[in-house]
Amino acid sequence: MNSFFYYNPTKIEFGKDSVEQLSKLIGDNHKKVLLHYGGGSIKRSGLYDKVIKILEDKEIEVFELGKVEPNPKLTLVREGIEICKKENISFILAVGGGSVIDSAKVMAVGVEYEGDVWDYFTGKADIESALPLGVVLTIPATGSESSPNAIVTNEDGMLKMGIEHDSIRPEFAILNPKLTLTLPTKQTFAGVVDIISHVHERYFTNTERVELTDGLCESTIRTVMNNGYKLKKDPMDYHARAEIMLSGTMAHSGILGLGREEDWGSHRIAHEMTALYGTTHGQTLSIVLPAWMKYVYKANVDKFVQFAKNVFHVEDMETPEETALEGIKRFEKFLKDMDMPISFTEANIPTDEFELMAEKASKGDIVGKFKKLDKKDIVNILELCK
Amino acid sequence: MNSFFYYNPTKIEFGKDSVEQLSKLIGDNHKKVLLHYGGGSIKRSGLYDKVIKILEDKEIEVFELGKVEPNPKLTLVREGIEICKKENISFILAVGGGSVIDSAKVMAVGVEYEGDVWDYFTGKADIESALPLGVVLTIPATGSESSPNAIVTNEDGMLKMGIEHDSIRPEFAILNPKLTLTLPTKQTFAGVVDIISHVHERYFTNTERVELTDGLCESTIRTVMNNGYKLKKDPMDYHARAEIMLSGTMAHSGILGLGREEDWGSHRIAHEMTALYGTTHGQTLSIVLPAWMKYVYKANVDKFVQFAKNVFHVEDMETPEETALEGIKRFEKFLKDMDMPISFTEANIPTDEFELMAEKASKGDIVGKFKKLDKKDIVNILELCK
Repeated sequence: MNSFFYYNPTKIEFGKDSVEQLSKLIGDNHKKVLLHYGGGSIKRSGLYDKVIKILEDKEIEVFELGKVEPNPKLTLVREGIEICKKENISFILAVGGGSVIDSAKVMAVGVEYEGDVWDYFTGKADIESALPLGVVLTIPATGSESSPNAIVTNEDGMLKMGIEHDSIRPEFAILNPKLTLTLPTKQTFAGVVDIISHVHERYFTNTERVELTDGLCESTIRTVMNNGYKLKKDPMDYHARAEIMLSGTMAHSGILGLGREEDWGSHRIAHEMTALYGTTHGQTLSIVLPAWMKYVYKANVDKFVQFAKNVFHVEDMETPEETALEGIKRFEKFLKDMDMPISFTEANIPTDEFELMAEKASKGDIVGKFKKLDKKDIVNILELCK
Repeated sequence: MNSFFYYNPTKIEFGKDSVEQLSKLIGDNHKKVLLHYGGGSIKRSGLYDKVIKILEDKEIEVFELGKVEPNPKLTLVREGIEICKKENISFILAVGGGSVIDSAKVMAVGVEYEGDVWDYFTGKADIESALPLGVVLTIPATGSESSPNAIVTNEDGMLKMGIEHDSIRPEFAILNPKLTLTLPTKQTFAGVVDIISHVHERYFTNTERVELTDGLCESTIRTVMNNGYKLKKDPMDYHARAEIMLSGTMAHSGILGLGREEDWGSHRIAHEMTALYGTTHGQTLSIVLPAWMKYVYKANVDKFVQFAKNVFHVEDMETPEETALEGIKRFEKFLKDMDMPISFTEANIPTDEFELMAEKASKGDIVGKFKKLDKKDIVNILELCK
């Protein structure tokens, strides 16, 4: 186990009536709040009205910035930063999924900086502080509700890049599984894959003697898969929604990566598919993950054997390689069962830009830790995704 | 899954060189610090000198209160409160195990209260705030380093009672597994049992559809058991120490109980054994847990079947009851393998005060949730401990 520092002060309010706690959670120190959200779904569901009423009852002046798109864009972030600076806003409330939360997080650091917020992404400036923010989560997927990470797309060059800083962990996250009961199937399962991918990025490590977190990772993956199947049968199953929502937060809270070297190769590759074709994050991960697994498993067969046995209860086969491959096969089957694409073809994405994607993903550098990948490796993985 | 609120802002600094981070963690706001510790072991190990040097380098005025005993006493707590009030101390640093930390926590709330701190235990006053405190952990066991709980013994009546409040979660906890390499075997395994008991109190629940936390609990128990065996073979195994140390924090951090009704019946019974005979907490738990299990399993056989299968890989036997009992038998074997007593006789404790202990544990009320226990049930459980 490696040494580590861990700090996660996000307050989690979880359950059927959790939105009612917003008033208490936001406290009495904020007179002007930016309400950040995506499209019309929160208006249709009544969540928007409920939130507005709670804020108005507290005599909070509410400024609004909606229209966050999936894979949130820098232009909108800059617009939000302007509003916050101009209006002296002291708190951002993100109501939505990972895109809304990430967009809010980047605003939160941008408000505290005189220059252009993109400087934080290019390394030109270091994050020091952020405006406090809170979350009402509507889509369990990215785990952004308690993570120190945010990713946005700079339309200038379609660069999808991220920042990481403890100051952008939200002050609170309101998680109400009921809000997710009516999520479209496609979004539900894209979220499921995203959650599992966050565990994978931590689970597939060469760090040895990490038995506790290995076990926590395996339990989380199994839980998300089991409850994915339950939602396929009955999308209105509150408890399956609850398991997946809590797993989503757990998967990216940092707990599962304690003392481990993390990988993040698949994410880097997947981001370039999204940047180029606008493919949903969960879909790109569904395509990349099995290919990545097939390409890298030989770097540490034992870990993949462990995955096969502890996640899928695969019995030992003739060789460790066979056992490892059986685990990957079962994972691929799970993705298919969730109606997720596992190839470019299935997702109707062109296959003629692998060099460009690999170039952008690697930027002349090495990607991932489980197996260090160079540009050529990435092209090879993309070939396996065809 | 039940609704819940969760907030754990304790900073965890974990690893071989974590004590070096004390200077940064304690920050620059405290000029006067109370250093709270137990006996001479931290002086013999050099940890005391290291901590003093770090504090002196920061020009912090250090007040000392040592001599915390296992099952910390209210008299010493009151003494600490006096010192803090008189000297205007703004931070308490607990260096030691659970007893030292709990003692420090009760001081921390006592300093903020004009009346007698025992009022918080009797319900005569409600905790509102606490002096900030930090921890350098030397014994993995109680999980107090990031928990909102503290337990002390009031010598007047030998009442062992607890408080719970988020304000007493330590600001930071420094966890260095190296500090635990030389722990006496008996203390090591008493800690192992304490850790497992914290998971049990959460695991054995009648709350349904708690698959994620069930899995996290099972992984944690398995990890602690496996690494208990590793330490039996080689007490100097750093990584086994690390697994147990991290598991100890995890077990009582609150994560494993999210959305679940918790039990705490065994703890209530075990506390009375300690209050009466001074028996180490881990030992009393080792005696009570198997008896409690045998007495309550019929209240929810399925949960005990799950325990047997997922923790001990027991195959289904002829009846669920047999499978459940096999799990309990294996757990009992584990305790024996750790050289822990599983009966009053083995621990050389008298068996003639069951009525008194049951009376004190229940206080005319019901104890536990998995199976609600009255005084008579507690006597029956104690009879099974003979």
